[in-house]
Amino acid sequence: MVRVDVAALADGVRAGQRRALAQAITLVESTRADHRGAAMALLADLGAAETSVRLGITGVPGAGKSTFIEAFGRHAIAEGRRVAVLSIDPSSARSGGSILGDKTRMPELARDPGAFIRPSPAGATLGGVARRTRETMALCEAAGYDLVIVETVGVGQSETAVASMTDMFVLLLVPAGGDELQGIKRGIVELADLVLVNKADGDLLAAAGRAASDYAHAFRLIRPRLRGWTVRVQRCSALQATGIQAAWRSVQDFVEATRASGAWQDNRARQARDWLWREASAALLDALRDDAEVRALIPALEQAVMAGELLPGVAADRLVSAFRNRQAGECP
Amino acid sequence: MVRVDVAALADGVRAGQRRALAQAITLVESTRADHRGAAMALLADLGAAETSVRLGITGVPGAGKSTFIEAFGRHAIAEGRRVAVLSIDPSSARSGGSILGDKTRMPELARDPGAFIRPSPAGATLGGVARRTRETMALCEAAGYDLVIVETVGVGQSETAVASMTDMFVLLLVPAGGDELQGIKRGIVELADLVLVNKADGDLLAAAGRAASDYAHAFRLIRPRLRGWTVRVQRCSALQATGIQAAWRSVQDFVEATRASGAWQDNRARQARDWLWREASAALLDALRDDAEVRALIPALEQAVMAGELLPGVAADRLVSAFRNRQAGECP
Repeated sequence: MVRVDVAALADGVRAGQRRALAQAITLVESTRADHRGAAMALLADLGAAETSVRLGITGVPGAGKSTFIEAFGRHAIAEGRRVAVLSIDPSSARSGGSILGDKTRMPELARDPGAFIRPSPAGATLGGVARRTRETMALCEAAGYDLVIVETVGVGQSETAVASMTDMFVLLLVPAGGDELQGIKRGIVELADLVLVNKADGDLLAAAGRAASDYAHAFRLIRPRLRGWTVRVQRCSALQATGIQAAWRSVQDFVEATRASGAWQDNRARQARDWLWREASAALLDALRDDAEVRALIPALEQAVMAGELLPGVAADRLVSAFRNRQAGECP
Repeated sequence: MVRVDVAALADGVRAGQRRALAQAITLVESTRADHRGAAMALLADLGAAETSVRLGITGVPGAGKSTFIEAFGRHAIAEGRRVAVLSIDPSSARSGGSILGDKTRMPELARDPGAFIRPSPAGATLGGVARRTRETMALCEAAGYDLVIVETVGVGQSETAVASMTDMFVLLLVPAGGDELQGIKRGIVELADLVLVNKADGDLLAAAGRAASDYAHAFRLIRPRLRGWTVRVQRCSALQATGIQAAWRSVQDFVEATRASGAWQDNRARQARDWLWREASAALLDALRDDAEVRALIPALEQAVMAGELLPGVAADRLVSAFRNRQAGECP
């Protein structure tokens, strides 16, 4: 990407051209300063599409997330939706990117013209990955994808990041006794709006019934996340495509109920405000590093901290004071 | 805590008084501005203790982390160490704090006069929890605890945070086939310096042997994290206290080998530099919010973002520009 024609790219995205969308995503994922400016201009041009449904999905390893998303996504397409699947996987901080290609994990959905699948951007920090995923989501919505599924791989801190950018959070579990719930972190259980006990098929059918009943009992003790909605626990088999229609129905019910209560709108507003502050934090650090005189202080302070002679907090205080003094010194 | 006598508190911590240490930790965990200043003064007074060993421990749910830390910690105390156990568990973003009290999980270690156990601070963000855990670690070291164990509950992003503040990272696994390794996130596997297959006892003894051999094979493919050290895979039974001595030996060997290669020192230096930047970021945001005129802009910008009229990134840009102009306006 040598030069970016933002207006043409915006037109291509709005027209739903897959190639333009992929190019736009590459642009927001770029860390180059000129690309960053173009990305912001592109996002400002495209604006916000408020009609989409943003679905977060997580599950314990082996819960069958890929198979479920494939079955669920195809059902949504059959119901007239256009489906984008994004993933957040910041786990591989050293190697970057996902272990398996997302398209390999969901072969049928990947071939469907109504679906757009994009793997997690490579990035060292969860914050960086989340920032780019948010912007990618906005691009997909501008391109007409009205169901955006953000999945996260594994059970950890990234769930909070996914919940912070989606309207509804789905937790995928496997059939097991109710005490298995202890293996799932409490914070994640509390994020769930819909719990699906997958693999309700074959030998596990009876176990899935018992597990769903146990989970339903456990979830009764948990305060619902959003006004107007009570967490549901359902069974499904992504493999046999049973319970997918019921899961789809629950998503529709959730959207209706939380829009009626106003919780949907409140949730989106809160998410936008949080995003604003994360962006401000990143911009401030960029500004500090951009000031030549402040930048000149960095090596000595870093050196002292690295040698164990200065506490990191004390060094940070000196750096920020210098930046503020410099800003004050730039007067007419 | 009404007023803080920093010098007296520092003396108490240095004398190894448990009460003073607990009070100091409460101080660094406080979010009050005056407490924050006192905490920084206290940490500056105490300085850095470079003789400790910082051990990060993680494991899949059910791997027997608590039982292992109890057996390993007591062994270390018998070897003449003083042991502090801290935990990072930011998962419960809504409820705050851990599900189980840490002292209940490790009853014998909790009673040992050579051990100090502190649960994870309640906090909404991983960043906040990590910041306070780092400072708590420095306090424990100043109080004479020369083995600090930082454990993390579950398998997720918090592992990266724990690895970013420790010298050595231990991964606790359960006996299972080698393909189970796929259930562990690649990023975490790559952080490991020592892999322990726990529950090598009773019916699982043979399975543990096979698993250790499978894991050893898999780890051969992974580039060691630090120069001078090759990842080891060992069996142990925390329940029967077998393999604990060998695990202790490996920790000693790791310390010797990485100190000899210089990787130990490099790792600590890099960690200190990263900490500096995280602190600078937090201080910049505090400065922006402290400026009365900039603060006056916040409600309208937040409102526009929350109503979906303005992109969060665009609003952040305006806020940061206003802050920089204000700083420039404060000239003599």
